[in-house]
Amino acid sequence: MNNHSIRTGVAGFRGYSGAELVSILARHPHTTPVLLEHREKDEAPRRIGQSEPHRLPCTADAVRAEGLEAVFLATPPEVSMQLAPAMLQAGAKVIDLSGAFRLGTPENFEHWYKEPHTQPELLSEAAYGLPEFCRDRIKAARLVANPGCYPTAANLALRPLVDAGVIDRDAGIVCDAKSGVSGAGRKASLTTSFCEVTENFSAYSILNHRHVPEILRTSGLEERELSFTAQLLPLDRGILETIYFRAKNTASADDLLAIYQRRYANEPFVRLYTAGHVPDLHAIQRTNFCDIGVRFDAKTGRAVIVAAIDNLVKGAAGQAVQNMNLMFGFAETAGLL
Amino acid sequence: MNNHSIRTGVAGFRGYSGAELVSILARHPHTTPVLLEHREKDEAPRRIGQSEPHRLPCTADAVRAEGLEAVFLATPPEVSMQLAPAMLQAGAKVIDLSGAFRLGTPENFEHWYKEPHTQPELLSEAAYGLPEFCRDRIKAARLVANPGCYPTAANLALRPLVDAGVIDRDAGIVCDAKSGVSGAGRKASLTTSFCEVTENFSAYSILNHRHVPEILRTSGLEERELSFTAQLLPLDRGILETIYFRAKNTASADDLLAIYQRRYANEPFVRLYTAGHVPDLHAIQRTNFCDIGVRFDAKTGRAVIVAAIDNLVKGAAGQAVQNMNLMFGFAETAGLL
Amino acid sequence: MNNHSIRTGVAGFRGYSGAELVSILARHPHTTPVLLEHREKDEAPRRIGQSEPHRLPCTADAVRAEGLEAVFLATPPEVSMQLAPAMLQAGAKVIDLSGAFRLGTPENFEHWYKEPHTQPELLSEAAYGLPEFCRDRIKAARLVANPGCYPTAANLALRPLVDAGVIDRDAGIVCDAKSGVSGAGRKASLTTSFCEVTENFSAYSILNHRHVPEILRTSGLEERELSFTAQLLPLDRGILETIYFRAKNTASADDLLAIYQRRYANEPFVRLYTAGHVPDLHAIQRTNFCDIGVRFDAKTGRAVIVAAIDNLVKGAAGQAVQNMNLMFGFAETAGLL
Amino acid sequence: MNNHSIRTGVAGFRGYSGAELVSILARHPHTTPVLLEHREKDEAPRRIGQSEPHRLPCTADAVRAEGLEAVFLATPPEVSMQLAPAMLQAGAKVIDLSGAFRLGTPENFEHWYKEPHTQPELLSEAAYGLPEFCRDRIKAARLVANPGCYPTAANLALRPLVDAGVIDRDAGIVCDAKSGVSGAGRKASLTTSFCEVTENFSAYSILNHRHVPEILRTSGLEERELSFTAQLLPLDRGILETIYFRAKNTASADDLLAIYQRRYANEPFVRLYTAGHVPDLHAIQRTNFCDIGVRFDAKTGRAVIVAAIDNLVKGAAGQAVQNMNLMFGFAETAGLL
Repeated sequence: MNNHSIRTGVAGFRGYSGAELVSILARHPHTTPVLLEHREKDEAPRRIGQSEPHRLPCTADAVRAEGLEAVFLATPPEVSMQLAPAMLQAGAKVIDLSGAFRLGTPENFEHWYKEPHTQPELLSEAAYGLPEFCRDRIKAARLVANPGCYPTAANLALRPLVDAGVIDRDAGIVCDAKSGVSGAGRKASLTTSFCEVTENFSAYSILNHRHVPEILRTSGLEERELSFTAQLLPLDRGILETIYFRAKNTASADDLLAIYQRRYANEPFVRLYTAGHVPDLHAIQRTNFCDIGVRFDAKTGRAVIVAAIDNLVKGAAGQAVQNMNLMFGFAETAGLL
Repeated sequence: MNNHSIRTGVAGFRGYSGAELVSILARHPHTTPVLLEHREKDEAPRRIGQSEPHRLPCTADAVRAEGLEAVFLATPPEVSMQLAPAMLQAGAKVIDLSGAFRLGTPENFEHWYKEPHTQPELLSEAAYGLPEFCRDRIKAARLVANPGCYPTAANLALRPLVDAGVIDRDAGIVCDAKSGVSGAGRKASLTTSFCEVTENFSAYSILNHRHVPEILRTSGLEERELSFTAQLLPLDRGILETIYFRAKNTASADDLLAIYQRRYANEPFVRLYTAGHVPDLHAIQRTNFCDIGVRFDAKTGRAVIVAAIDNLVKGAAGQAVQNMNLMFGFAETAGLL
Repeated sequence: MNNHSIRTGVAGFRGYSGAELVSILARHPHTTPVLLEHREKDEAPRRIGQSEPHRLPCTADAVRAEGLEAVFLATPPEVSMQLAPAMLQAGAKVIDLSGAFRLGTPENFEHWYKEPHTQPELLSEAAYGLPEFCRDRIKAARLVANPGCYPTAANLALRPLVDAGVIDRDAGIVCDAKSGVSGAGRKASLTTSFCEVTENFSAYSILNHRHVPEILRTSGLEERELSFTAQLLPLDRGILETIYFRAKNTASADDLLAIYQRRYANEPFVRLYTAGHVPDLHAIQRTNFCDIGVRFDAKTGRAVIVAAIDNLVKGAAGQAVQNMNLMFGFAETAGLL
Repeated sequence: MNNHSIRTGVAGFRGYSGAELVSILARHPHTTPVLLEHREKDEAPRRIGQSEPHRLPCTADAVRAEGLEAVFLATPPEVSMQLAPAMLQAGAKVIDLSGAFRLGTPENFEHWYKEPHTQPELLSEAAYGLPEFCRDRIKAARLVANPGCYPTAANLALRPLVDAGVIDRDAGIVCDAKSGVSGAGRKASLTTSFCEVTENFSAYSILNHRHVPEILRTSGLEERELSFTAQLLPLDRGILETIYFRAKNTASADDLLAIYQRRYANEPFVRLYTAGHVPDLHAIQRTNFCDIGVRFDAKTGRAVIVAAIDNLVKGAAGQAVQNMNLMFGFAETAGLL
């Protein structure tokens, strides 16, 4: 296990994921975060004696000069595509929290993100950063594409069951997903303004959310087999996904739980519930856990899985740090418990 | 059209549905509400000069003496089973907002409510109060079983499609339902206390909610065909149901919308959205509308319906008044627009 | 009492106050609202068969041609200063919901709003639209400056006590005000975005809010006598002000209540609470009422007044309609109960 | 500095303060918490493999047998009065989070808590647990009365200014306090149920809150000089107090800040803001900090102080651990940063 320290940089530190990253890294035993400015904006400190992480311009020169070994990009895809090559060239490993490097091929990216991919070689090089299923590739990677928040919960819930062949895929799977507002980022918009969200609940990107291809790619499902809907909860943070399918070769909730238990026996960040119990958002907020519970009706084969994560932690900054831990040989849970 | 006035009584007026009833009836052109006390509890008025509706003990004698022609029971099922016969005997028509008279047979009631039914004859007499599908029976009824909140939205969304034969029932239907906290009633409990609910979202009664049999009975679906989950939103009022199925004989969202348009052409309280658009809770709060929107993927046949109502209005008090309007020959929309 | 109908126009109908105005006017017995566009923006209707109020360009020609008799300006001060003269010239009476015409002199306006006043003559002509204290001037006015939300509650609470001479003004008065987020308008901004506001509470414009001069002008207090702070509540609508002072010549809460009762005996929109009781926001939301309660400690003379209004109704659109009712001789409560 | 470990017990661990205590202690470098049951209630674990702190009956025998050196009582005053003597007798130091031992004399307790004090000797022995002002007494104490949440913020804001003589006490001080709902405890009640609190704001205990005597005792103010109101915010946790007074011998906000800076120079848990800036609740939630900001109008001498704490941390469990740290010679910030 690596015990020495590294210096890390965070671009996009003003956004919700970026701020969460800075906060996790500031408590991490093996690193100190540096803020990487990619646009100028100086705020006077509001607290007397307030100390702030060190700031640098987000350039290859600065990153190399300061000897940053890891750079987190908590930036939009188009900014990440631009910054990633420079950071890699400066000698840093890169963990990108955007969708820029998740989808494998430029065609797939262009189809879902409606813009051309400007770094197709990096795209094919990038490791998908879901440690529970891609740990070895992550350890060896220079560039990690940190998964989307919805796909993290969906894949942790679905992949073991797909692999075990207990889902009647012909009948279709439904993933009804709900997220807190921080998942939409910090940029001001009418959609996420308080008066529009409070006492409201709304569905968006029904069947065509850009996180769908990530779920398909990792779970092994096909598009026609999965109905995915994203919905906005009037709360700050947390994702809960209610997943429905018909189970095959399954006699009880415990049969399904046994599949998860085998798969996740050594996973530090997946927690399972006793049969019939399911997580709520309070169970996982401000943690890096993905909690999973199962409900099953043996008479008819109907199964319901509830999976919950904090979209800013296991769904973004926490998982990014988990990936950094793997890339640098630190304890996988360092800074995350 | 009836234009004279009647006197109405409300039992259970302190609960959220009961209070909503009193508030709707107080603005109704053809009635004045009387509060029916079934337990004593005197609160001093807090506002100077505050006037309150008239109060009576909730007894057959009082109801007969005051000449109440309609009585609303916004009481738990066990109280409704006790009060309904007395109110009917006193000459009033009864609209019961509990589950006491919704399920057709004592066996069905006992199975889902875990208690014996004490009024089996009234149970078989009661009309199910979903005007869009039971208008004629409601008009002729002495006793109306006002539908549950979840089934109101589910049946308005599902029944036309089931009737039209466009749902692939073998593949199963998912109804993922979310409700505001007022649906749980006004009784203090840890489950509905502020700190447990705020910034939280949780599933309950997964696959076995007692509203399921109401959906099955009215929609014509069978239990094995429908997966229903109820979930608690951190907000006061509103139900949104996201319904998933595979469509048959359907080329576009407009095909599904055309079915709804035919069925609901003359319905004053069902509103439809243009293809691809769906309602949110702000669209229906404090109204008696059920709003319905459709999303459809022609390539794969996957369909998603979003239906939304206010659980205290179309899901309870508003629909109860709609039923009263039908029972007494008032304009169906009287007091509700 | 006037019983004929007029046509009214609403500029700024997309904002929260403007939308509330349209909704109140649509239910008003003596008017039909027209939407006045001051910039082009066409949204397709989302509901099938949805009807919308008539739309016109916000020009003198259009207003004259359509014969609008009243125009509401729910626009920022700089837009109101520009639109008001044109609307008046077109023959309409104008009710302005901005701060443009509230402060009496150009100097006062410039001091608090940090911009020059472009219509000083209209400024001196405008009647201040607080009916409880300016009813006669409002009735005779062509141009009414609808009061700010905070001053409406503050003045209704303070003015009778100042007039009665029961406040020890040397000791100072504190008005600690809290408002829901809709008071900040509908424009997207980080300050009012959901994640910044939920689970938060913050003070702003401490001692120097631009509503202060309105309170001073109407209540008769001087700036050094009043400490006013505005604070943001994590909720949609409602203002509650907690007002503190030392009382003179006062033996009990009932002495203070008696002053209010005398002053507000015939006021339809001020409600008083019995001694020791105070309103909360649920008591007044979606109503045009200002509720006032008193707490008093006879031993020490410390008095606390709690006043609550809905910032969008009595604090904006409702009061604007109350003013229109006065200006056109309608029943003062028309459309507002 | 003490570096060895102790075992601690928590009675009342199911309440919000108790649960926060268990959570803080579980991360504390020098202790392991044990749950002390004072009534039986067994819940099955919901998570597979879930580990829970050790449980013991809350008796002197068990505490002695297990060698607990510190016991936290997160119980109501009447339970604390009963448990404290037994825990002390068992050799543990006691930190009581209730109001049982805060008010110095049985008369004072009885006046504000409306019940007789059953442990007058312990009452006079108890140290008041506000470290910033009572550090030496706390270090030497067997029994610490952890301060109330409101008084913690109020005294940290007021005491330095009272001591410095810059408050015009004759004119009176206003402390307008707002708290999240967790301050009311976990017991289900209508007052704290979701639907009553959401979109609401209400004042309670105006001028006569039982926390007032704690403020008076520590700040040195007299009852007639202070007007204190408690108000309920629609959020989970956090207290913000807006404090108003006339300042004497003060030329600027910086003069007041200088007083705080001198007094709190070495305090790890008090943070000050630059002149004109004030904290909001997001700044302090889930921390043990008390943040203080100042606004001052030099022309008129009006001053406003805003102080904010997390009611469950600096206002309860965090401060209790800070006190334990002092009592056992641990670093004062251990487990709290």
